[in-house]
Amino acid sequence: MKLYDGGRAPNPRRMRIFLAEKGIDVPLVPVDMAAMAHKSAEITALNPFQRLPILELDDGTILTESVAISRYFEELHPEPALFGRGAVAKAQVEMWNRRVELYLLASITAAFRHTHPAMVEWEIPQVATWGEVNRPKAVAYMKIMDDQLATNEFIAGSEYSIADITLLVAMDFLKPAKIQIPEEFVHLKRWHAAVSSRPSAKA
Amino acid sequence: MKLYDGGRAPNPRRMRIFLAEKGIDVPLVPVDMAAMAHKSAEITALNPFQRLPILELDDGTILTESVAISRYFEELHPEPALFGRGAVAKAQVEMWNRRVELYLLASITAAFRHTHPAMVEWEIPQVATWGEVNRPKAVAYMKIMDDQLATNEFIAGSEYSIADITLLVAMDFLKPAKIQIPEEFVHLKRWHAAVSSRPSAKA
Repeated sequence: MKLYDGGRAPNPRRMRIFLAEKGIDVPLVPVDMAAMAHKSAEITALNPFQRLPILELDDGTILTESVAISRYFEELHPEPALFGRGAVAKAQVEMWNRRVELYLLASITAAFRHTHPAMVEWEIPQVATWGEVNRPKAVAYMKIMDDQLATNEFIAGSEYSIADITLLVAMDFLKPAKIQIPEEFVHLKRWHAAVSSRPSAKA
Repeated sequence: MKLYDGGRAPNPRRMRIFLAEKGIDVPLVPVDMAAMAHKSAEITALNPFQRLPILELDDGTILTESVAISRYFEELHPEPALFGRGAVAKAQVEMWNRRVELYLLASITAAFRHTHPAMVEWEIPQVATWGEVNRPKAVAYMKIMDDQLATNEFIAGSEYSIADITLLVAMDFLKPAKIQIPEEFVHLKRWHAAVSSRPSAKA
């Protein structure tokens, strides 16, 4: 088994944090995204969407999408449970992971990819207006996260989950996207400090 | 238990098809999205993201996001399995469901919401250029789906899954988004005819 890794980009980082929380060691194959190696013929043959991470099993089976790969490991190594326990909690984790990813992280990513000069070869074509309209959207979504964290230790409730991993990566991606965390989001900031202090955050 | 439904929009339809495939009957509460009822104070209190569907359990627990609600029902009613069986198949279903949703359906939705005159109060602000650049992206993603369906009966492999539901809803959303299915995508068209003939497609 080997994991094609993409360094600092959000999805490879989500994957590494998940594995660190699980205590699972998988050999990493570094892919130099800054050199556009994820668009190479080799990577495209593994994943036609040219995205990382990619997990290659010993029998040659290919799995892509960090959440799908995470679910594979959750099935094989159920503890600690990072997708919730029981029907309601599993649905709540999935709900919050999607809310963080599809609304907050997506808006931050759009702001970064469509306005940052370094992304001109990545996001073809860049649509600067689209990047700009995503900045206030990201702040509006952070407000909903802050409200949730006012009464919950973690984003999906009382237990740390994959949704916290997605939210951590999203929050740490605000800086390159040039979006500020408003000072008044004190619950989100309390949560961010707590989750950032876990050893997995360095993965 | 009751399900706040949103009629013809893609995510409410995904939910109803999933329930039809499972043979589960849930009382529906119609929400008139054309009249913007999903932005009402009542719906916003249930889901601050103002999206449908929303499932309300008898104890008042609220679940949103069609995939999260679907997973809740999969946990309670495992057969027929629509999220795959076993670690590898579960990961493959999740991978394809994400590929269809995050790339193909997202690009079709962006084309529709950012260019259709009826969406001017929904997508604020509309960014027409962003809508336009998503049309060729949708076609490129359909090519990858067509390649997968050249050697697989269903999008995630040999069994019908939630990923087929997402793909069906995406394909049927091409027309309002004014995107054509290229004639040469014969495998995708074969699959579309087969999945459309299932009774659940009318849900």
